[in-house]
Amino acid sequence: MKTIDRARLQSLMEREQKKFVDERPKSKTLFERGRKSLLAGVPMNWMVKWAGAYPPFVREAQGAHLFDVDGHRYVDFCLGDTGAMTGHGPFATVKAAEEQMRRGITLMLPGEDAIFVAEELHKRFGLAYWQFALTATDANRFSIRLARQITGRPKILVFNWCYHGSVDESFITLQPDGTARVRRGNVGPPVDPSMTTKVVEFNDIAGLEAALAPGDVACVLAEPAMTNVGIVHPAIGYHQALRELTRKHGTLLLIDETHTICAGPGGYTRAENLEPDILVFGKAIGAGIPGAAYGFSREVADRITAHQSLEDSDVGGVGGTLAGNALSLAAMRATLTKVLTQDAFDRMIPLAERWTTGVAKAIVDAGLPWHVTRLGCRAEYLFAAEPPMNGREAHDAMDFELERFMHLYAMNRGILLTPFHNMALMAPQTETEDVDHHTKVFREALKELAA
Amino acid sequence: MKTIDRARLQSLMEREQKKFVDERPKSKTLFERGRKSLLAGVPMNWMVKWAGAYPPFVREAQGAHLFDVDGHRYVDFCLGDTGAMTGHGPFATVKAAEEQMRRGITLMLPGEDAIFVAEELHKRFGLAYWQFALTATDANRFSIRLARQITGRPKILVFNWCYHGSVDESFITLQPDGTARVRRGNVGPPVDPSMTTKVVEFNDIAGLEAALAPGDVACVLAEPAMTNVGIVHPAIGYHQALRELTRKHGTLLLIDETHTICAGPGGYTRAENLEPDILVFGKAIGAGIPGAAYGFSREVADRITAHQSLEDSDVGGVGGTLAGNALSLAAMRATLTKVLTQDAFDRMIPLAERWTTGVAKAIVDAGLPWHVTRLGCRAEYLFAAEPPMNGREAHDAMDFELERFMHLYAMNRGILLTPFHNMALMAPQTETEDVDHHTKVFREALKELAA
Repeated sequence: MKTIDRARLQSLMEREQKKFVDERPKSKTLFERGRKSLLAGVPMNWMVKWAGAYPPFVREAQGAHLFDVDGHRYVDFCLGDTGAMTGHGPFATVKAAEEQMRRGITLMLPGEDAIFVAEELHKRFGLAYWQFALTATDANRFSIRLARQITGRPKILVFNWCYHGSVDESFITLQPDGTARVRRGNVGPPVDPSMTTKVVEFNDIAGLEAALAPGDVACVLAEPAMTNVGIVHPAIGYHQALRELTRKHGTLLLIDETHTICAGPGGYTRAENLEPDILVFGKAIGAGIPGAAYGFSREVADRITAHQSLEDSDVGGVGGTLAGNALSLAAMRATLTKVLTQDAFDRMIPLAERWTTGVAKAIVDAGLPWHVTRLGCRAEYLFAAEPPMNGREAHDAMDFELERFMHLYAMNRGILLTPFHNMALMAPQTETEDVDHHTKVFREALKELAA
Repeated sequence: MKTIDRARLQSLMEREQKKFVDERPKSKTLFERGRKSLLAGVPMNWMVKWAGAYPPFVREAQGAHLFDVDGHRYVDFCLGDTGAMTGHGPFATVKAAEEQMRRGITLMLPGEDAIFVAEELHKRFGLAYWQFALTATDANRFSIRLARQITGRPKILVFNWCYHGSVDESFITLQPDGTARVRRGNVGPPVDPSMTTKVVEFNDIAGLEAALAPGDVACVLAEPAMTNVGIVHPAIGYHQALRELTRKHGTLLLIDETHTICAGPGGYTRAENLEPDILVFGKAIGAGIPGAAYGFSREVADRITAHQSLEDSDVGGVGGTLAGNALSLAAMRATLTKVLTQDAFDRMIPLAERWTTGVAKAIVDAGLPWHVTRLGCRAEYLFAAEPPMNGREAHDAMDFELERFMHLYAMNRGILLTPFHNMALMAPQTETEDVDHHTKVFREALKELAA
């Protein structure tokens, strides 16, 4: 197996950085203007992670393609890091949103859309009762609060290197010595997360059982396959063990499908017949128009209802004034019924298979110790020979310098990958030629790296 | 002064509840259907607080008016509890949102709108550097994290009965014995909030100084006037003391303008020349299309930048994938430049003055020990003879039973007030006759109560 020559990598990176800057003078002008009114010149902290010297400034996006202010066209495999996996501005959602905006945006009163969406989510995921939030982060935060309330238990459990949005309690890592510690790069946490959170490795049944045994864990917050540190698939039998152990120890199972909806219309839960007590789904649910939903089994719903008081129903840290606003709900209704359909997945998943096959062949041909993996319409390559079994293995395979090079090389050739790892999502409007363009560029990058 | 006869109140409430149900059969049908898929039959927990036997289900809203599925028309003084204080579906925002949706909703890359909005917010509020979030709750959460990081201090300070959205750390009350305790009705908090949060009464300078003196408070999180427990105005000199004490003790001052934007285009901050270190503004900023912003002084921005790392910029609990999405930013730009303008406030504030005058006169004529207060285009009556000086006084003046009656009586006569207290907001489209209709109905309610 070949290894990467770091001096060569650095010199290629310099060449690509120069190409990026030379070809994007208008973005540069906007970035320089932005530095006078935006922190670090970008509207959100994480935007500094785009691999260029500055981010390309966007002009517009249509379907699976995006255009920057300098006139470059990109195949968008980032797709709003899942928020736009419907494709940008899908017609049915945009039309429904336009009609709703003219009849009001945020109304504070329920409409029929809320019921329709809840009924549709029941059909997709099997959970009977639903509530709405603006973000999957909030849906997770509110679900955790409710889980603590009805179980009377103080802790939650997450997996090492998990991702559940900006939920304060989830920024924790498991150290090699088995202790839990605040995650590197965490910003001013409210309390040390080890006070609120236990952390175990994904696929570690013994570790899970040991953590649940004391009976102090209100819920396990889990992506059914990890997606944000590369893709980590559950081992055969892991989900059965997770469900049995949580039931045995009276711990609720909270499945976050926000990314794993890539597995199909009912996410990983329906694809693999999971039986969560609580389920969260956000981001793509409204084609990027902010909205999220969280659902409960009948038993959990009954336990929550037993704790509710009319007078205090608005004061408990579960809320959000704009949550479930009329625009969000109209967008969710249209997206669920007309955009993120079985037909769409029937188109998207084969494209992800083609992407994966192309990348796998290029890796083999280059003789590099890398691999590529896939979950539904989402695919990802990792800088390790074998698929990781848990978050630590996945994280250890990350290579910030190499990742930035691969992303910048792709961006300079009209391809956007998510800026956080090597992920590609397919939209219903992605074309075969878009996939093949990536394969070609990826192969060229490997050839230069290995030259 | 008269007191309320509780038996009479109960009998009037029963009459009004019957009238509500008799006149809303279609809402009832939807509510019964909703109970099969929504927790407690409503899409968000706080919707149970509407005073009817069930909430009216909405058909549509236009400007300052709302129509339910049973054909009732309402003057909407609730206005999305501030999210729709622009009026429902303002033309300029809807048009900009429509155009943006066709060019993409959530793009993960910056555009010129982010810079434009940051520059506009700089002009309005005086703070130099801005970031975006989806909700004011998130903007507060992220600001608190950054305040803790740059000060290295563990605590925050809030006011008794404050409101800052669903920020976990803010659900704390000051007990009569001076101790802090988790707020009644709080749902499964991550930790006891007294571990993270100090709480003092608004307008209590000595209490504030005592709490800041140990030097362990990262920031004071403050509405410049309290708005969510009725309106509590700052005493003369209080803001000067708050600023001097926070500076003296090295504590950052974080002003949440999300509700107090009712004071004018630059909120209470510009109206009263405040000098916050950090400022948060959400809800109405995009006319109800989800979005929020948080700004920093130059000094705070420099301190934050000194702590930032490129590799970890996306992992620290400050983020939000859809934060600052293209739709939000287009909505903010249009709302700030064309809807929430000085002209709009010049129309809204005199209407709130008229509303306040009418209500005050009716209270005097009825001989009830109530009063009414106002902040810009926001007005509120309270069941106490004197304006409260702090959260406890305001909270003690609340009367859940009486409040529900006043709201239901108004709703049955075509008027919506916020379901959480007795607040009325004016939109740019509110008409004089809408205000006078409320005055008439309010006067009639008092007559019946006092008969």
